[in-house]
Amino acid sequence: MNTDQYRVKSGQKVSLKDWATDDDGGYDKEESKILLDSLEAELAEWQERLYAEGKQALLIVLQARDAGGKDGTVKHVFGAFNPNGVQISNFKVPSEEELAHDFLWRIHAKAPRRGVIGVFNRSHYEDVLVTRVHSLIDDRTAKHRLEHIQNFEAMLIDGGTQIIKFYLHISPDEQKDRLQERLDDPNKHWKFSENDLAERAKWPQYTAAYEEALSTSTKDSPWYVIPADHKWFRDLLISRILLDRLKAMDSQYPAVEFDPKKIKIPKI
Amino acid sequence: MNTDQYRVKSGQKVSLKDWATDDDGGYDKEESKILLDSLEAELAEWQERLYAEGKQALLIVLQARDAGGKDGTVKHVFGAFNPNGVQISNFKVPSEEELAHDFLWRIHAKAPRRGVIGVFNRSHYEDVLVTRVHSLIDDRTAKHRLEHIQNFEAMLIDGGTQIIKFYLHISPDEQKDRLQERLDDPNKHWKFSENDLAERAKWPQYTAAYEEALSTSTKDSPWYVIPADHKWFRDLLISRILLDRLKAMDSQYPAVEFDPKKIKIPKI
Repeated sequence: MNTDQYRVKSGQKVSLKDWATDDDGGYDKEESKILLDSLEAELAEWQERLYAEGKQALLIVLQARDAGGKDGTVKHVFGAFNPNGVQISNFKVPSEEELAHDFLWRIHAKAPRRGVIGVFNRSHYEDVLVTRVHSLIDDRTAKHRLEHIQNFEAMLIDGGTQIIKFYLHISPDEQKDRLQERLDDPNKHWKFSENDLAERAKWPQYTAAYEEALSTSTKDSPWYVIPADHKWFRDLLISRILLDRLKAMDSQYPAVEFDPKKIKIPKI
Repeated sequence: MNTDQYRVKSGQKVSLKDWATDDDGGYDKEESKILLDSLEAELAEWQERLYAEGKQALLIVLQARDAGGKDGTVKHVFGAFNPNGVQISNFKVPSEEELAHDFLWRIHAKAPRRGVIGVFNRSHYEDVLVTRVHSLIDDRTAKHRLEHIQNFEAMLIDGGTQIIKFYLHISPDEQKDRLQERLDDPNKHWKFSENDLAERAKWPQYTAAYEEALSTSTKDSPWYVIPADHKWFRDLLISRILLDRLKAMDSQYPAVEFDPKKIKIPKI
């Protein structure tokens, strides 16, 4: 699977209409699930190596429109990892205390420690997305924030954290179907908010804000535009990208200072 | 399955030699795995209800001797939950800043928010276990700490958090086998520490400290002594106890204020 076609190249201007939402990589659902299962043992091994080594961290940023599949990705992709080494951070509407600080303050506090995979379900990018769409910040502030974000990410990378950012890309029709499902199933009513419709009406404004954010992609801190209409392909593609990165990080079980053969465990 | 036989009753004095480490509940490994699989869909539903309702939290405390199976329990039992609603906290040797505060300070900060299942992999009980065994605190301090712990837990419970505490009970021979496995498998060397042998040598002292801690069990904040020589029975028993508690918590999907039938999602 060539995952590089889904990566935004450094300096590339993103126009989301050119990026498919319903790409399935040539797989059907059944094949996709079998492939995903076959990746899980390898993912588990490389995660354990990362954890055991304790020298590098991996930070995953998940962004999407409402019903774009962030929660589903956390459940199905990151649910397959050992929870001892995964830290999920859900960034919701900022609290009063969070708003009393710079916008990266609450984000920085949740940066994963070495050995851990940190998952940001929403992230610092909300501060150039929802704020932008609702004109809470002007163009100049947005531009500065994007620069601050790039500097912040570069600092994390220097400190031993690798970063991958996923934009889960769905079509307006797919969002409609998913929101309708929440209305149709009484057990899903709680996931629906009337506010979702107001946000949906700003589809083109969100597109513009996302395109600007995605265009800051670099080789070290890349954005991937994940075709996300098919949940099963979304999960497979993200897992594949994660596995490739974990392998490239090449974490090693640490050497130990004792000689295991010489140690006798006494009976009690 | 009668899980109540594994619960320490309020006021009950615990003598660990009377509690089996190799109980298998009458199941073999195969049956146990099938049963565990059959619980997972129900666990997932009740976890989702807890999360959706957002009114109650569940705090799980995991304590055990070295190689007792805490990490394995996190991986196999809590790995089956939706990671969006689970918060794992690993309490290691306290940092300088943590030691500069009272012993519950770092613990309180990790209390799960409502809707979430919090898992403490080690916990505030370390402060009456390892400290006790190494004579870092005297009897009087230990007694006071146990009182503070009980008061703290009562306060959490009053705030909407339910608590279940598991002591994973293994035999000295089982610990020996597991430590030996870490010495025999190069990919597990990093899990072994020579210090584990020094701790193992204090087996009776740990037994005494655990017995004292377990004897503080109450109906609202119970300790369960989990026979943990068989990992598969440990996972099954803990899952069963969790499911019973989640059902008793009886979380409900929240009622919504809109009429789902009247909402039309516009096309874009």
